[in-house]
Amino acid sequence: MTIDETALKKHLDWKGKLDIHAKSHVNTREDLAIAYTPGVAAPCRKIADNPEDVYKYTMKGNTVAVITDGSAVLGLGNIGAHAALPVMEGKCVLFKEFGGVNAFPICLDTQDTDELVDMIVALAPGFGGINLEDISAPRCFEIERRVQDRLPIPVFHDDQHGTAIVVLAGIINALRLIHKDKEDCSVVINGAGSAGIAIARLLLRYGFSTITMCDSHGIVWSGSDNLNDAKKDILKYTNLNDQSGSLKDAMRSTDIFIGVSVADVVTKEMIQSMNPDPIIFAMANPVPEIMPDLAKDAGARVVGTGRSDFPNQVNNVIAFPGIFRGALEGRAPRITEDMKLAASIAISSLVSDEELSEDFVLPEPFDPRIAPTVAEAVKSHISK
Amino acid sequence: MTIDETALKKHLDWKGKLDIHAKSHVNTREDLAIAYTPGVAAPCRKIADNPEDVYKYTMKGNTVAVITDGSAVLGLGNIGAHAALPVMEGKCVLFKEFGGVNAFPICLDTQDTDELVDMIVALAPGFGGINLEDISAPRCFEIERRVQDRLPIPVFHDDQHGTAIVVLAGIINALRLIHKDKEDCSVVINGAGSAGIAIARLLLRYGFSTITMCDSHGIVWSGSDNLNDAKKDILKYTNLNDQSGSLKDAMRSTDIFIGVSVADVVTKEMIQSMNPDPIIFAMANPVPEIMPDLAKDAGARVVGTGRSDFPNQVNNVIAFPGIFRGALEGRAPRITEDMKLAASIAISSLVSDEELSEDFVLPEPFDPRIAPTVAEAVKSHISK
Repeated sequence: MTIDETALKKHLDWKGKLDIHAKSHVNTREDLAIAYTPGVAAPCRKIADNPEDVYKYTMKGNTVAVITDGSAVLGLGNIGAHAALPVMEGKCVLFKEFGGVNAFPICLDTQDTDELVDMIVALAPGFGGINLEDISAPRCFEIERRVQDRLPIPVFHDDQHGTAIVVLAGIINALRLIHKDKEDCSVVINGAGSAGIAIARLLLRYGFSTITMCDSHGIVWSGSDNLNDAKKDILKYTNLNDQSGSLKDAMRSTDIFIGVSVADVVTKEMIQSMNPDPIIFAMANPVPEIMPDLAKDAGARVVGTGRSDFPNQVNNVIAFPGIFRGALEGRAPRITEDMKLAASIAISSLVSDEELSEDFVLPEPFDPRIAPTVAEAVKSHISK
Repeated sequence: MTIDETALKKHLDWKGKLDIHAKSHVNTREDLAIAYTPGVAAPCRKIADNPEDVYKYTMKGNTVAVITDGSAVLGLGNIGAHAALPVMEGKCVLFKEFGGVNAFPICLDTQDTDELVDMIVALAPGFGGINLEDISAPRCFEIERRVQDRLPIPVFHDDQHGTAIVVLAGIINALRLIHKDKEDCSVVINGAGSAGIAIARLLLRYGFSTITMCDSHGIVWSGSDNLNDAKKDILKYTNLNDQSGSLKDAMRSTDIFIGVSVADVVTKEMIQSMNPDPIIFAMANPVPEIMPDLAKDAGARVVGTGRSDFPNQVNNVIAFPGIFRGALEGRAPRITEDMKLAASIAISSLVSDEELSEDFVLPEPFDPRIAPTVAEAVKSHISK
């Protein structure tokens, strides 16, 4: 069976990858009177008197909403709220399996930005955090910002920040391996959507100073004819010489290439035009910007992709379960850049000097140390 | 410990009465590739091509949203979305424990009717049914109607219909016990909010023809100065002689009193003014409209209340788990009056002739036959 056939069969068997269990079993009249009326009125009154008590008496503190509008699902595009449900269920499975976090999928059947903001804010009372998922750029930036501004719980668009955190962890280790300093490295990011811009922001925060963004029109510069607010904003901190040109022009004499774009846009020649020992993260799915063997042939020292069948897989599951675990435990009101940085550094630290190699700059997703280590790092960087 | 103290302690231990479990465990790279990317794209594509497939590949078909705006929670009133959460969690526990239905609490932090309608419609894709809970009258009528008009899945305000279904089941058996025919019985309903009006509607549908509604101002009639749309509508079918007067006036020479109002508004004298063998359902919580012993002293033949410490408890848990179980299994687009009637009759049928007595007109909530019997009855009355 192909993976598609297996997946269909399994999904048919599961009829939903999540189950909701009662912790408070109801076998007697007394059980009923405690878990429901009249006993349940007591915690209700406590919360009505002191809203913070909702964390003491309910599931809020360990429950995350995984929310999408179905506008940018995997590589499938705008398939809508219903068709997005299997992905959101899957995400919730990963939250539970990797982070011990209860997560529930909410697929919203609207793609109006104002409506989405109001709805996500309104449905937040039962949740300790909001994971936004597969919402198209540039809407995702505005939605995340506006929802976070109105809520005292973390709002995290994983397609942006999860990816950025894992990429940075990989780059930290790649630099450790080849003994380059971030201060001396120039970076090209191809793809100026949600992930690309988040990666640029986190890399800047970490200390990279020379970053050039490209999109399908080439280098993002002041004269680009497709600048949106997000691109205008990141342009203040990237491409400081305001160069124009193609991706090929951008890559010449740089140290790091990060692709969150489409298949096969990078050639051997482009890799060869980079500085010695280039680091390549080619994360287009399912076919990377350049295949790892080609990149290696052209001199790439470290190559990462989004795929599990090549070394150095950039997999968000390394980040988000631990990040929410830590944010929930520490009751973080938001997930700051410092918390994200701490997560990247924590992830990179899980690869020991002995293990570190060109083919091993990121820990395995199933390494059981990851979520607790990330959670601890995130928790210790919470500022309220 | 008092019940309040026990409830607080238990809720503190549980920190949430629900847990979300993964059915699809993720222990290997292959597990990950099937439950999440890339395998999950296959069911997504199927659903994008054929929206009905969402029932085949996701949790939708066995998952209900328990939705409130916190505007009328138990007897606590308008305590808001956060403080309502323990009740909604409890309701979800009952769905699972009694009906095997996955239910998830959604507490919406708005009480604007238009917003609520739009939000509930928008968040429906992941759910096979919507249970509205503890939304104040008369807003609840409009919200239920407008949401149902826009969705192809059942929308059911349990405070209205669940109560009505169980009350009717109790009345069917009370009449069976005392050998009166519904055609010969006149009914007074005190309380013209969500439950009172739903009870009136279902009793009319069952075949009662002489019903008088009262509210805190007395008999609801054409000259009442507090008529809302719901009262105006029910007035077309009740109080056909358009009498005015007090509750006391209304009760004289009637056969059945149904109270969904407040404590102690019914006296012994009022019971004595009724026809022989009166049936009294006094469901004000926690103190009924008249205490059962007083009502009995005054000649009441069958007395039911909302309390578990008196006989004949009217408990919605007898109805809603089986109703949703049946509606989901039969993929009902809505829960019709016929399905509600079928549920009442099914519930009443579970009390055998041998068991039937003045103190036993309704089955015990823990009778394991209830949910399957109700589900089967509901399922066989689905019209699409």
